[in-house]
Amino acid sequence: MPLRDQRVTLAHGGGGKAMRDLIESVFTSVFNPPGMEDQARLMDARLQEPGARLAFTTDSFVVTPVEFPGGDIGKIAVCGTVNDLAVGGAKPLWLSASFIIEEGCEVALLRRLVASMAREAAKAGVRIVTGDTKVVNRGACDTVYITTAGVGVIPPGRDLDARSIRPGDVAIVNHVLGDHGAAILAARGDLMLSTDLESDCQSLGHLMEALIAAAPGTKAARDATRGGLASTLNEMAEAAGCSVELDEIALPLRPEVKGVCEILGLDPLYLANEGTLVVFVPEAEAQAALAAMRAMPEGQGACIIGRAVPKAHVPVTLRTAFGGTRIVDMLVGEQLPRIC
Amino acid sequence: MPLRDQRVTLAHGGGGKAMRDLIESVFTSVFNPPGMEDQARLMDARLQEPGARLAFTTDSFVVTPVEFPGGDIGKIAVCGTVNDLAVGGAKPLWLSASFIIEEGCEVALLRRLVASMAREAAKAGVRIVTGDTKVVNRGACDTVYITTAGVGVIPPGRDLDARSIRPGDVAIVNHVLGDHGAAILAARGDLMLSTDLESDCQSLGHLMEALIAAAPGTKAARDATRGGLASTLNEMAEAAGCSVELDEIALPLRPEVKGVCEILGLDPLYLANEGTLVVFVPEAEAQAALAAMRAMPEGQGACIIGRAVPKAHVPVTLRTAFGGTRIVDMLVGEQLPRIC
Repeated sequence: MPLRDQRVTLAHGGGGKAMRDLIESVFTSVFNPPGMEDQARLMDARLQEPGARLAFTTDSFVVTPVEFPGGDIGKIAVCGTVNDLAVGGAKPLWLSASFIIEEGCEVALLRRLVASMAREAAKAGVRIVTGDTKVVNRGACDTVYITTAGVGVIPPGRDLDARSIRPGDVAIVNHVLGDHGAAILAARGDLMLSTDLESDCQSLGHLMEALIAAAPGTKAARDATRGGLASTLNEMAEAAGCSVELDEIALPLRPEVKGVCEILGLDPLYLANEGTLVVFVPEAEAQAALAAMRAMPEGQGACIIGRAVPKAHVPVTLRTAFGGTRIVDMLVGEQLPRIC
Repeated sequence: MPLRDQRVTLAHGGGGKAMRDLIESVFTSVFNPPGMEDQARLMDARLQEPGARLAFTTDSFVVTPVEFPGGDIGKIAVCGTVNDLAVGGAKPLWLSASFIIEEGCEVALLRRLVASMAREAAKAGVRIVTGDTKVVNRGACDTVYITTAGVGVIPPGRDLDARSIRPGDVAIVNHVLGDHGAAILAARGDLMLSTDLESDCQSLGHLMEALIAAAPGTKAARDATRGGLASTLNEMAEAAGCSVELDEIALPLRPEVKGVCEILGLDPLYLANEGTLVVFVPEAEAQAALAAMRAMPEGQGACIIGRAVPKAHVPVTLRTAFGGTRIVDMLVGEQLPRIC
């Protein structure tokens, strides 16, 4: 039955006809999941290879506004989970998607988010195979929250792990930093900032595969989301038992992001990203890694930003443009709230 | 570092030190997930058997109040996803758990929920291997929402599917109906009902294994959650292309649940359950199925409630105690809101 309601009501979460109509009309007609049971039943030959491992991860997405320049909460929900799989060296295969919807949410908005998820999933080469829908009273969530979980396969013998980073390894990012955080901040409107900034929200699976093919000695990778590059590098350095020295001049930043940060007194190293890869590779493979990344649309801005050094007093330092050194700590207080 | 805060603040969702402290102190110290990367890396020999399939499912949980007689939102989040795997014939292996937490939520409450999840996971024989935490502004969720996803393995040759139900197959439930819905309703307190009812929230994985071992011809199973037994049977009947005839006298109901329903004008067939199995087995295996279920704590109240019949005008009918027949439709309007 076609869905005639224009807004979601509590009945759409009740488990009855209204829910079935909403799910069929808005979700399963687009995602086209396999089978009719409450669970997806799947297999992929690569999972059955001796030595292969399954990768499993999840993230909830609560970004507000739910649509913003360069993306929306649906696109982020696909990219974020695909990227958590990809940076661990897994080939992303299947996603689940669970929606918590506020009573009164426009059905047209849900359709746009679902279309955006389907588009991004196709691009990333994953299928959205199972899901759930709950409806909460008006005021009990901000329009819609989406939680995705993802399953992927790690080929035999591949073992990306921050603990394998050694002094001398080179740190590379795939493009400019902080676009997502700055774009969301501007999109909120409270600050009356007008910019052309777009979120960098994108899937990194294909980029990771190209990188590993070109630089098989790649040690570890992360996507620098909440807490920004600074927090991500601190985590990696601590796991590795090394320190990391960044070169301020080498950090890729758009003038607009620098501008937003200067006006608001923010440090771009703490701005969130949603499609930014930080990867450590052996020095001997750095040029091959850069070339492979730059050949992909997601990695055109790839550059070296620093390197691992023997463990020092602090995990991450920055050599400033003036020749000094400053500590780059983990984020201590609040992130720009609700950026993912 | 031990967590000194008594309530969750936005900083605990920011991706920095406060978030790491919250996650380590409250979540990973209890769940003890494998590895240090953003993803769990796993394998189970049963997944690599020729013909084995992977089962994947997800559910979000938004029940209010978050603690209630017989359970809490954490226990439900484990049972619900374990059960979605189990009723499809899968052995549940691994869960993800993602938390959306309201600013101001008590850390002590989170610790109770996490302990409850760990307890239920151990009972069900699954591991919580990966997770996420987001914090939203005060008022942007009801204390805490939990989304779990689950991965399990379906042994070679097993294919439970509602489409395989045939006229003559017998419908069995594992125990009394409606306890969860009635208990939540009473726990809300608005209705000034005082009852001893407890939610039936429980994991059904072990019961399903015992059932299939005793009745290998088992056709299909579901857990009758939102929308109650009525909606679940309608879905199964429609998938099967049969009708289902229930016997009112055979329906197991506690007098207290009947009482709550009579006072409020509700039909217990539409009350939600969180540990109630509906299963169709060939008539020849019905006694074996009943015996196997009754031998387990989760199935002590197992009984036959009806049977599949050739397709009629409506999917589900009830033979009343007075010898009449009434239509048992899917839930049309609202469920008692937010029961899972």
